[in-house]
Amino acid sequence: MRTIDWDTNTGTIKLIDQTLLPGEYRVIECATLSSLCKAIKSLKVRGAPALGAAGGFGMALAARLSGAKTMDSLIQDLEKAAEIIKSTRPTAINLAWGVDRVLHAVSDAYNTSSVRDIAVEEAIRIADEDVKINKQLGKYGSELLDDGDVVMTHCNAGRLACVDWGTALGVVRSAVEEGKSIKVVACETRPLNQGSRLTTWELMQDDIPVTLIADSMAGHIMRRGMIDKIVVGADRITEDVVFNKIGTYTHSVLAIEHEIPFYVAAPTSTFDFKEWEGSVKIEMRDPDELKFISGVQTAPENVEVYNPAFDATPMENISAIITEKGVFHPPFLLDEIRV
Amino acid sequence: MRTIDWDTNTGTIKLIDQTLLPGEYRVIECATLSSLCKAIKSLKVRGAPALGAAGGFGMALAARLSGAKTMDSLIQDLEKAAEIIKSTRPTAINLAWGVDRVLHAVSDAYNTSSVRDIAVEEAIRIADEDVKINKQLGKYGSELLDDGDVVMTHCNAGRLACVDWGTALGVVRSAVEEGKSIKVVACETRPLNQGSRLTTWELMQDDIPVTLIADSMAGHIMRRGMIDKIVVGADRITEDVVFNKIGTYTHSVLAIEHEIPFYVAAPTSTFDFKEWEGSVKIEMRDPDELKFISGVQTAPENVEVYNPAFDATPMENISAIITEKGVFHPPFLLDEIRV
Repeated sequence: MRTIDWDTNTGTIKLIDQTLLPGEYRVIECATLSSLCKAIKSLKVRGAPALGAAGGFGMALAARLSGAKTMDSLIQDLEKAAEIIKSTRPTAINLAWGVDRVLHAVSDAYNTSSVRDIAVEEAIRIADEDVKINKQLGKYGSELLDDGDVVMTHCNAGRLACVDWGTALGVVRSAVEEGKSIKVVACETRPLNQGSRLTTWELMQDDIPVTLIADSMAGHIMRRGMIDKIVVGADRITEDVVFNKIGTYTHSVLAIEHEIPFYVAAPTSTFDFKEWEGSVKIEMRDPDELKFISGVQTAPENVEVYNPAFDATPMENISAIITEKGVFHPPFLLDEIRV
Repeated sequence: MRTIDWDTNTGTIKLIDQTLLPGEYRVIECATLSSLCKAIKSLKVRGAPALGAAGGFGMALAARLSGAKTMDSLIQDLEKAAEIIKSTRPTAINLAWGVDRVLHAVSDAYNTSSVRDIAVEEAIRIADEDVKINKQLGKYGSELLDDGDVVMTHCNAGRLACVDWGTALGVVRSAVEEGKSIKVVACETRPLNQGSRLTTWELMQDDIPVTLIADSMAGHIMRRGMIDKIVVGADRITEDVVFNKIGTYTHSVLAIEHEIPFYVAAPTSTFDFKEWEGSVKIEMRDPDELKFISGVQTAPENVEVYNPAFDATPMENISAIITEKGVFHPPFLLDEIRV
């Protein structure tokens, strides 16, 4: 199944619980807004494009569950729901984007029942479009990969980060689909191990060769000439930087030192032209993520921890940005991308 | 107690089991060569200088346990023991250095009983000297640190990596002892978490402020101006590179990008002028270290893993090498260090 989907029979959200992978594949149901918010906060569903769909489906769920009998009170309920959903992951732009898209779609509705219908339709449309967009993005990006390339990636910008196909891993999938032989090196991605748990798992499902390394090994393997290209996803792209999983910036500096192309693969919904690096709040996560691994203590209990979820990579470190509208090279002319 | 020591009452080796920290502080006894080799392989005792002492004590133990009645057969037993001990961790030069030092010391002995006495005396001398050397190294290194500095370190080059005091953390301890206020940022150091388990623990024991980060966060915090200096240890220093815990090279590249001094702290016993980067075998460790964390599965069981224990940092990335003979700056004139 898709990473996240709307169950038309029950009017609820179904999603793959990514915190249990690779040990267990389990699909869970979110029948309330609070269960969806918990799933987002605890990263049962994560990845920028998947969060866009989660935002849309969350609004559909909110519309269905609201008992409001007038248009005003229903819209009020939806606006409240929008704030609640957006606050779960403040850095990822796509979550807010998915929420706002449904909120905007229902503004044309003429009665409460059409608000509810439109909310669901628009959310499903977001999810369907995401798959199409990723396939298009993958097609453009695959032109950057050569037969025999070893591609390093960070975190999980794959099928599990999207509704389907993937962004960074979508580029790899499209290249493989075209007959190119591609090997992937997956960085573990501490502290939540999306690389070791999710990227390896989904590539192995597709029989795409993948080797797991610790994040700190990236410099060593680049120096030894073992990496041809780097492709990562993005959580938010402003005029000056790409926000992505913590560790991305470190890889970009290593890429320059070793003259390895560093590509960012992201749908245009990831772009946020209203903000810049300094105006975007980087989500700080629970210190326990670095003190415990699956309940096992790996650091003194009262140690001070610094645990930002994302970092910012300046545009000058990026060789190209791959979108569903094409591949953009430096200088990144934002007007081209905006079109 | 010291990280590793000789128990004169029992004629055995006592050491702190570092695999149990920070959860449990336990001192174990190695009464056989095989129990010592297991302790070295499983990293119950680790860190270049501590391994030097372990090598020496291992030879003392071998001399005591050998049933040989003639000089020839005793020396043969010791030579066999030397090979066994050295093979446990091939990259760390100090282990071989400690073994060879005892082997060399006993070559002057006139009978089997004096071989046994000299072996124990020489091993104890190695351990005592290590403490003195680290204190001297710390004193030299502390001149490079300013009051108020935030010092990043990788892995554990502290008291637990040595007999006592530490190399990289010895520099910090000496600066603190001189009245400077120093804060440490400890990189987790995947896959075996020596940073989160050991460095944080031993600094907290001494009330030296320490903040834990994931290895991949290093670039982000350097870019934000949160790091003043970097000090790491070394497992082997050749003419062209410094071998140290995997991840060190990545930090050195980041240090150059952000114009942060990058210091290596190591006793001169770490220098190996006979080898160069290409001639030193980098120890490859068990893939399970990246697939399981304390028994909990964090990656698909049959995923391919690349798990080198060390990397090589070229001399041109290093601002200074701190030894017990003084601080050496580039160009590193090896003849100066040899003296």
